Amino acid sequence: MRLDDLIVKRSEWLRGEGPESSIAMSTRVRVARNLKGRLYFSRANKKEREETLNILFAGVKKSSFFKDALFLKVREISDTDKQFLVERHLMSREHAEDIASKGLVIEEKEIASILLNEEDHIRLQVIESGFNVLEAWKAVDNIDTDLSKHMQFDFSNKFGYLTSCPTNTGTGLRASVMLHLSALAMTSQIDGVFDAISKLGLTMRGFYGEGTEAIGDFYQISNQVALGYSEEDILDNLERIIKKIISRERETRINFLRIKKFEIEDRIQRSYGTLRSAKIITSSETIKLLSAIRLGIDLGIIKDVDIKKINEVLLLTQPAHLQKVAGKEIPPYERDIKRSDFIREKLGVA
Amino acid sequence: MRLDDLIVKRSEWLRGEGPESSIAMSTRVRVARNLKGRLYFSRANKKEREETLNILFAGVKKSSFFKDALFLKVREISDTDKQFLVERHLMSREHAEDIASKGLVIEEKEIASILLNEEDHIRLQVIESGFNVLEAWKAVDNIDTDLSKHMQFDFSNKFGYLTSCPTNTGTGLRASVMLHLSALAMTSQIDGVFDAISKLGLTMRGFYGEGTEAIGDFYQISNQVALGYSEEDILDNLERIIKKIISRERETRINFLRIKKFEIEDRIQRSYGTLRSAKIITSSETIKLLSAIRLGIDLGIIKDVDIKKINEVLLLTQPAHLQKVAGKEIPPYERDIKRSDFIREKLGVA
Repeated sequence: MRLDDLIVKRSEWLRGEGPESSIAMSTRVRVARNLKGRLYFSRANKKEREETLNILFAGVKKSSFFKDALFLKVREISDTDKQFLVERHLMSREHAEDIASKGLVIEEKEIASILLNEEDHIRLQVIESGFNVLEAWKAVDNIDTDLSKHMQFDFSNKFGYLTSCPTNTGTGLRASVMLHLSALAMTSQIDGVFDAISKLGLTMRGFYGEGTEAIGDFYQISNQVALGYSEEDILDNLERIIKKIISRERETRINFLRIKKFEIEDRIQRSYGTLRSAKIITSSETIKLLSAIRLGIDLGIIKDVDIKKINEVLLLTQPAHLQKVAGKEIPPYERDIKRSDFIREKLGVA
Repeated sequence: MRLDDLIVKRSEWLRGEGPESSIAMSTRVRVARNLKGRLYFSRANKKEREETLNILFAGVKKSSFFKDALFLKVREISDTDKQFLVERHLMSREHAEDIASKGLVIEEKEIASILLNEEDHIRLQVIESGFNVLEAWKAVDNIDTDLSKHMQFDFSNKFGYLTSCPTNTGTGLRASVMLHLSALAMTSQIDGVFDAISKLGLTMRGFYGEGTEAIGDFYQISNQVALGYSEEDILDNLERIIKKIISRERETRINFLRIKKFEIEDRIQRSYGTLRSAKIITSSETIKLLSAIRLGIDLGIIKDVDIKKINEVLLLTQPAHLQKVAGKEIPPYERDIKRSDFIREKLGVA
């Protein structure tokens, strides 16, 4: 498998299926692990980091889950390709920026991937479409079990899995769900949700994770603490609260449509009209318009396009994806023109 | 002829034809006249005003030009109908507000009309489509000559025609052209045009004349002084300067399309897309969007609709027209919904 093969493939989370897929875009579960007997990344020198990376690559290669996987050294990835991987949520922005001795493994189906020598030696993640916490966790757990046959992870009977940052220690687990909270955003209930979940051990982030803004009303909600609870407790808590948020979003959508029918229809149809008409469009405006259309599909206002197509356009119009699809570097201004051409083509505008 | 007959008729200036019609929407020429031996409107009491109105109606009725005309007393016109007449540029806002002893005569083809007991006893106007100053003047002159056979106008050998306000004295003439100056507005050259024409004895106003704002880059340019020059001199000066403005607008459009092709196309197509998609839309947003589409038609960017249709939508979506077409009063909020329905129907959106 080559990196360019990913372009023609569709990320699992793009399917637009799975439970609650009209509101929950995707579920991601990751665990942090470190090799026993090897200096942690931040403490190791250059030589030790390189040795660790080689050990990690060798260990992962032994796992049957990664038989046909893509193994990458971050320093050998071009800038556009790194951005491409960030856009696909396969790499964190930090991992893309600090490239020395860092690695990435992407499983063939693009469901599982591993960051090597990130803050921790191993950051194994699984992304599933829709609201699928348990399934994603089961997949992570299976892979983790298999990996531990080929490598020995640092584990304390008192603390659990040891990690570079204490917030990850214990289970090393972070589960997050990407929610599309249009109605809660429109009715200014988002801040209330944010306050409420903070008190329940959860946190809310933007479209590209930590430190990024929410664009197009997409919010990532994840557990904040990994220590002191079992994996099951953490996942149960997350699942329970997200279920509540989803049902609140759903109620608000229905209510809003009842009370503000024309305003909602107007907003959605204008977004659709603009997306189908624009001749220059930025990536962030595209996300905002697609967000409204996504809501419109759920509310039965937009009927000639489905969520899968919207998810696809959302991903493929990101700057690096656009360039990968075109097969060449495109300067930002031309990108905004190409993006509009691409969108109109995808939406079947004559 | 009844007032409601106007709804199904199309105002002459809507034809979207005539010289320079892509930039010059319509030309209007009016003369102010007063009856000899009758107190001027502002000096007359109620009884005298009523007597004057009757004399005026009787005089106009004798003219063959107004054989099949509509004769209206403003106080007998409903509020919606008055607004309807203002939207058609057949009545000034002031004439619609101060209703006592005021009259209106609309010639069958809606090309010529007369305000009676406005600031002056007679304000005779002719509207032609496109940039047609001389033709409009000829029509006014002919009607004026005919009217003067049936009524005696106040005339001084020293000053010319006498009027209530000295700025109208002399010829009593005001000629104005409604210009669509999108490119000059987009490139911020409008203020320069305004300064330049002020020094040349012209003035620039908004869509509904004196004291109104320019909406959708429509500007009315007219002569400021009626005294001290012959009618020919006044019209020549106006025509000469407007020709220059039109050619400047045309050059800027072409230039702008060359330099900012995608920006222009983007703006025009988004406007068209929004107009075809909206479910709620105000009258003023409609004018702005139609303005961009009108430009798009001239530049060959929009091909499936013509200027005539745009002019028609522009007029028929005005608040009173919308209600007249619907045949009932509609509250503002519902009007914004109806307006969007009407526009989509007119533009053939499924």
